[in-house]
Amino acid sequence: MTVRPTLAVVGATGAVGTVLLRLLSQRADIWGDIRLIASPRSAGRKLAVRGEEVEVVALSEAAFDGVDIALFDVPDEVAAQWAPVAVARGAVVVDNSGAFRREPDVPLVVPEVNPYAARRRPRGIVASPNCTTLSMIVALGALHAEFGLRDLVASSYQAVSGAGRAGVETLRRQLSLVAGTELGTGPGDVRRAVGDDTGPFPEPVALNVVPWAGTPCDDGWSSEEMKVREETRRVLGLPRLPVAVTCVRVPVVTVHSVTVHARFENEVTVDRAREILATAPGVVLCDDPAAGEFPTPADVVGTDPTWVGRLRRALDDPTALELFVCGDNLRKGSALNTAQIAELVAGEPV
Amino acid sequence: MTVRPTLAVVGATGAVGTVLLRLLSQRADIWGDIRLIASPRSAGRKLAVRGEEVEVVALSEAAFDGVDIALFDVPDEVAAQWAPVAVARGAVVVDNSGAFRREPDVPLVVPEVNPYAARRRPRGIVASPNCTTLSMIVALGALHAEFGLRDLVASSYQAVSGAGRAGVETLRRQLSLVAGTELGTGPGDVRRAVGDDTGPFPEPVALNVVPWAGTPCDDGWSSEEMKVREETRRVLGLPRLPVAVTCVRVPVVTVHSVTVHARFENEVTVDRAREILATAPGVVLCDDPAAGEFPTPADVVGTDPTWVGRLRRALDDPTALELFVCGDNLRKGSALNTAQIAELVAGEPV
Ligand SMILES: NC(=O)c1ccc[n+]([C@@H]2O[C@H](COP(=O)([O-])OP(=O)(O)OC[C@H]3O[C@@H](n4cnc5c(N)ncnc54)[C@H](OP(=O)(O)O)[C@@H]3O)[C@@H](O)[C@H]2O)c1
Ligand SMILES: NC(=O)c1ccc[n+]([C@@H]2O[C@H](COP(=O)([O-])OP(=O)(O)OC[C@H]3O[C@@H](n4cnc5c(N)ncnc54)[C@H](OP(=O)(O)O)[C@@H]3O)[C@@H](O)[C@H]2O)c1
Repeated sequence: MTVRPTLAVVGATGAVGTVLLRLLSQRADIWGDIRLIASPRSAGRKLAVRGEEVEVVALSEAAFDGVDIALFDVPDEVAAQWAPVAVARGAVVVDNSGAFRREPDVPLVVPEVNPYAARRRPRGIVASPNCTTLSMIVALGALHAEFGLRDLVASSYQAVSGAGRAGVETLRRQLSLVAGTELGTGPGDVRRAVGDDTGPFPEPVALNVVPWAGTPCDDGWSSEEMKVREETRRVLGLPRLPVAVTCVRVPVVTVHSVTVHARFENEVTVDRAREILATAPGVVLCDDPAAGEFPTPADVVGTDPTWVGRLRRALDDPTALELFVCGDNLRKGSALNTAQIAELVAGEPV
Repeated sequence: MTVRPTLAVVGATGAVGTVLLRLLSQRADIWGDIRLIASPRSAGRKLAVRGEEVEVVALSEAAFDGVDIALFDVPDEVAAQWAPVAVARGAVVVDNSGAFRREPDVPLVVPEVNPYAARRRPRGIVASPNCTTLSMIVALGALHAEFGLRDLVASSYQAVSGAGRAGVETLRRQLSLVAGTELGTGPGDVRRAVGDDTGPFPEPVALNVVPWAGTPCDDGWSSEEMKVREETRRVLGLPRLPVAVTCVRVPVVTVHSVTVHARFENEVTVDRAREILATAPGVVLCDDPAAGEFPTPADVVGTDPTWVGRLRRALDDPTALELFVCGDNLRKGSALNTAQIAELVAGEPV
């Protein structure tokens, strides 16, 4: 790999891509060229990165010539088709989609938890977990390293930007229709006001919560819930970990929150858990409810770490901890994690 | 008790009182006089009940003369002071506040679950549980009756009307300030836009979720979480039930949602659980996600039952069920449950 590797951002115009360009402008600059790639619809647009305007090029084989590392922030099917093309042209691919996360020969990496896994990538691809897993996994990983995780129950409060630009536009449009009204008090009144166009969501999301994300899997589970289960197991290296998750969309623009009930191998103490979380890289402990301190999306948005609050030991089980965790789904939940993986790969001894 | 008992509604002008008057106008009319009581601020106002305008009178001892049953929908401290006064004047009190729920000689009643408990009321007072407990307890009670509940983990998605009229006004005001803007994408931008007046909530609730309700209790728990634990145990008659709840406020006007992870004594099947929930009084099973069927607050608001969706058996524990439950916090969560208790009491053999 060259001293200053060439980076490609595939999907530079999307919700994740936009935040990634901002991050690349803020983080230590280790890159040579940064090439911006999107669909032909966006070719020719100019986007700012590292203080310069860079022209977006359309996705093609040639777009990967000379690229050392390619970050993919595009829909699953686009990544499935094009990541192998980028690898064939000599790039290492860091993929943010769901296309490769379940492949045994593609490592699934969270640099704070399993950085070593990025080294072994027989297909030249490293995958990054989905944003709901990433919202909690750094905090969970730190607790697991000390206490040994035995069982996980979690419920999510997922932001609309998890569904990309279309999700954000849908919430903003619906909010404009319901704000300043008395809506939200009669059956179906919100639905009638926002109309049939619910965007990427199956129900109106303004003044509502929607207990569904993704596509239907077996036995009533959603694909989002299955992803959180499988990816948490893979990243923590606990292939049999019992995981029960319910994924729910809420009218928040950015930042996923998760309530976590985690049982460990042995008795835990809140004092020791606080020490672990207060010193874990990538985690901020924000937990003094009597003083009004707990994380909320409104405060966490735009920040890098996983924020943890509401830390308690279960009253009836000395082996269980409760947490409320917030993470910016466009930062640690996607763009930041892939940027960190790219830096890991770029920093490998030649 | 007279054939047509006289009913008093104390707190007739509040969020719960308003819905109660609507319910009293819709349900089978078993009442003689209905007397409306509130603070002196509201005395003289006229409110519609059973198609007639009734004048609100100020709370006083004399206001309870001739009252058979008094429904209290007022703040805790007002109920604590005035419920015994109403009892002394000969009324049975059904109290919706938190003032008496923990008293051993005041039964805590959910008519679908423990109707018999309303009979023994040595202090003349029957208490109704808090709205978060009531959002899930009818469904849980039905499952418990068959399977035997062993352990409960729950997370709430609580509507702002759970904090009364002030909660609703706060959300509406904040929504007017954030709708039509690009807010929700930068740290603190929502907080700056809505200002310091966060109403009854510790943080902005528009475009946000707030993991706190109530006042601080020991070891980091909120009073709302402790109420759900204690009241669930009391109503189900399971004084040692392990309960771990996290209560979170969401920008929904009315209807509390709860994700439930319930472990039972023995193995459960989804088929049998579906049968139980499909036939349990007061429960509607709405569960076919592949066809877009699951409950959401926007559909449930203004309806009486507890709606259950997303029913699944835990993938790693054949004794555990997952549910997503919605209940209108102003109907079953408060006004309806007290109306049902009042009807139970009124129907007792003399
Ligand atoms: N949003 C999140 O929180 C999040 C978190 C973790 C992972 N992810 C994953 O990250 C990926 C991107 O998500 P997003 O939220 O950023 O989506 P998005 O806002 O919809 O953006 C999609 C991006 O993909 C590009 N694209 C679409 N079709 C293409 C094609 N045929 N050829 C080339 N480029 C194409 C778009 O380019 P144009 O602008 O030219 O259409 C755009 O740059 C998805 O796989 C998603 O699952 C998202
Ligand atoms: N909202 C819910 O979902 C819910 C659910 C379960 C239980 N609860 C409980 O039900 C009670 C009422 O809640 P809410 O949400 O309806 O509150 P709210 O909207 O704030 O209404 C409060 C009511 O109490 C009256 N009141 C206040 N101070 C009074 C006083 N000193 N003397 C006489 N009346 C007084 C008010 O009368 P004015 O209009 O004259 O001020 C108003 O009618 C509370 O104990 C609450 O915890 C509420």
